[in-house]
Amino acid sequence: MISDLRNKLDDEIEGHGGVSGRLCVPCADLKFGPFPEDNEHLTKLSKKMVNGVEVCCGSSPNQTSAILGLVVEKKKNVSCAKAMIQGQERLQAENNSTQKSHGQVAAHLLIGPQTPVSGQAAVRNWLTVDPVAHIRGVQLRNDRIRVNNSGLYYLYSQVYFLSLYFGGNSPGATTLYHYVYRYNVIYPNGGEELLLKSVRTQCWERNKEYDDYTSFTGGVFRLNVGDEIYVKVSNISQVSQDPKATFFGMFKLG
Amino acid sequence: MISDLRNKLDDEIEGHGGVSGRLCVPCADLKFGPFPEDNEHLTKLSKKMVNGVEVCCGSSPNQTSAILGLVVEKKKNVSCAKAMIQGQERLQAENNSTQKSHGQVAAHLLIGPQTPVSGQAAVRNWLTVDPVAHIRGVQLRNDRIRVNNSGLYYLYSQVYFLSLYFGGNSPGATTLYHYVYRYNVIYPNGGEELLLKSVRTQCWERNKEYDDYTSFTGGVFRLNVGDEIYVKVSNISQVSQDPKATFFGMFKLG
Amino acid sequence: MISDLRNKLDDEIEGHGGVSGRLCVPCADLKFGPFPEDNEHLTKLSKKMVNGVEVCCGSSPNQTSAILGLVVEKKKNVSCAKAMIQGQERLQAENNSTQKSHGQVAAHLLIGPQTPVSGQAAVRNWLTVDPVAHIRGVQLRNDRIRVNNSGLYYLYSQVYFLSLYFGGNSPGATTLYHYVYRYNVIYPNGGEELLLKSVRTQCWERNKEYDDYTSFTGGVFRLNVGDEIYVKVSNISQVSQDPKATFFGMFKLG
Repeated sequence: MISDLRNKLDDEIEGHGGVSGRLCVPCADLKFGPFPEDNEHLTKLSKKMVNGVEVCCGSSPNQTSAILGLVVEKKKNVSCAKAMIQGQERLQAENNSTQKSHGQVAAHLLIGPQTPVSGQAAVRNWLTVDPVAHIRGVQLRNDRIRVNNSGLYYLYSQVYFLSLYFGGNSPGATTLYHYVYRYNVIYPNGGEELLLKSVRTQCWERNKEYDDYTSFTGGVFRLNVGDEIYVKVSNISQVSQDPKATFFGMFKLG
Repeated sequence: MISDLRNKLDDEIEGHGGVSGRLCVPCADLKFGPFPEDNEHLTKLSKKMVNGVEVCCGSSPNQTSAILGLVVEKKKNVSCAKAMIQGQERLQAENNSTQKSHGQVAAHLLIGPQTPVSGQAAVRNWLTVDPVAHIRGVQLRNDRIRVNNSGLYYLYSQVYFLSLYFGGNSPGATTLYHYVYRYNVIYPNGGEELLLKSVRTQCWERNKEYDDYTSFTGGVFRLNVGDEIYVKVSNISQVSQDPKATFFGMFKLG
Repeated sequence: MISDLRNKLDDEIEGHGGVSGRLCVPCADLKFGPFPEDNEHLTKLSKKMVNGVEVCCGSSPNQTSAILGLVVEKKKNVSCAKAMIQGQERLQAENNSTQKSHGQVAAHLLIGPQTPVSGQAAVRNWLTVDPVAHIRGVQLRNDRIRVNNSGLYYLYSQVYFLSLYFGGNSPGATTLYHYVYRYNVIYPNGGEELLLKSVRTQCWERNKEYDDYTSFTGGVFRLNVGDEIYVKVSNISQVSQDPKATFFGMFKLG
């Protein structure tokens, strides 16, 4: 494997001129952690942007050798991390019957593209296909989470309200509302019952340019089989579609 | 049952004139879901307000027949939903011994009417009697949640701060504080220990009319038997008594 | 024990003059609960500050006797509360094998002193040594929480943003960002993946004096063994180091 890499890198060096022996790889491939001190070795390399990607380059034989070593070490780290995860998955699969009895019912859904609707409206089009989204033990149907088993659930939701004022002229202060509801035909007033409400008034001054604000709320509720849970907001056109800032989730207790 | 309903509806029709054959029922009784697309059938009916309740009316024999069918179908849905919930309750009662060992200790309390007190004060009069409130495995005593079993608990609270400025004159910006404390004689400084603190400064401008804001906070704590948990705010007179927006809850882990 | 206390109190009385029979003890030692109605007996005593501590004094023989009784009763309450906690600990130690199978993996970390860094940066120096902080089943390494077992985790964080404007001149509105990330070499783009994002824009007006704001966010995520979780903010110099208002926690489901 190391000789393979060395050949590839030799090609790379030649591709970049050969004479200068200048080796460039994406900096991300040489990162060993998220904090600056994890990557002090990168400060010695020169950086440039190639097709929107930051690449780290070594110009001396010593730096070329260092980069080569880092690439190999990083590959080893990735293999090792994957092996550790697979090992646990195998272990957990064996203990599956025990695990299942704990009933890990949970979901974390991310906002997808919305169709503008005037007035109070439900957030639609929740995404479950994303590395950080998941859903198990409940169903997503018509943008509502449907409960399969009666019991205690912790429900939470965050909404990212985002307003832009062109020319710095805001039309006055708006109050932003964010709700979590449940629906079941058995509940009074048509079946819709409010569980959580979060509120915030924007500032009144006129010379603001934008207003960003995330509203988070959550609580434990005794839900019944068939309950459908959903999120509503005062104005869907003021909601950002950043999936890491507008989300909806839950997990079952016990 | 259907013939019963038909008789009732016939009475209703006659009560409303008989001649026109105009049948009116509360629109809520014809709703099949919380979202607009669940209730497209209602857009064809005419609506009016009777004693503060929205009623949906059919004027042609076809519409009368449709309403009749919807009422019957809705009744069936309600019976079916109730049967499903009862079925689960029976099942869970049978498995009760297993369930109990998981110790589903949890509470979600809603704000009730408050007596105004000047300065920093505890939120009092938490409500447990509401379709969305509950408490199990802990005691509510003197508006404090008392822990029966030492262990890890997730505690959370939300407070809805609500200020009105008559004539648009606000007295300047106030900082709103929201705290979760525990009390036990064994802790230092008289036994009161701060667990969570949430803060927000209002805007400074003078021409605002109102300010609505919900503060949410939460965290996991290792609580001891006898610990009493409660919520304090900087000024109880600025707290809204909307029970879906000011609440206090917890659940035990493990 | 009571005679010991009586001797100590006699000394105290003599130390304060003897003639007047004036007995003073820290008020905290006479408190029987966190709310005003728990401590109505204190309203009858006179109060003064001694070396920054509020002391409650009785001047008549009756008040002296009452204080004596309260001190004894409080000592009894403390012993009783401690005995109750120890009793539970013994019980839980016996049931330890059952407890362990539930895997109470959890952490609640408090902010410690920060070194100023310009631009977006991780919150560093999380404290685990505090009566309300704790960590079990995960590791704190380089200010990141390292996951030992793949599974579902609820993650949460709060940041207290605190800005002061000298002379009431604010430099304009800033948007405050608060993030929760995970890192693992196996993830794309260098291994850093955003899980949660919380945002808030300050007001635009210029005559504000300060701005306090806590940002809370949380969610359930399927984490892999080896994942490292950490908190970032747009500007570390705007973060308060109040440990009850800036924190970072998690617990494992199931």
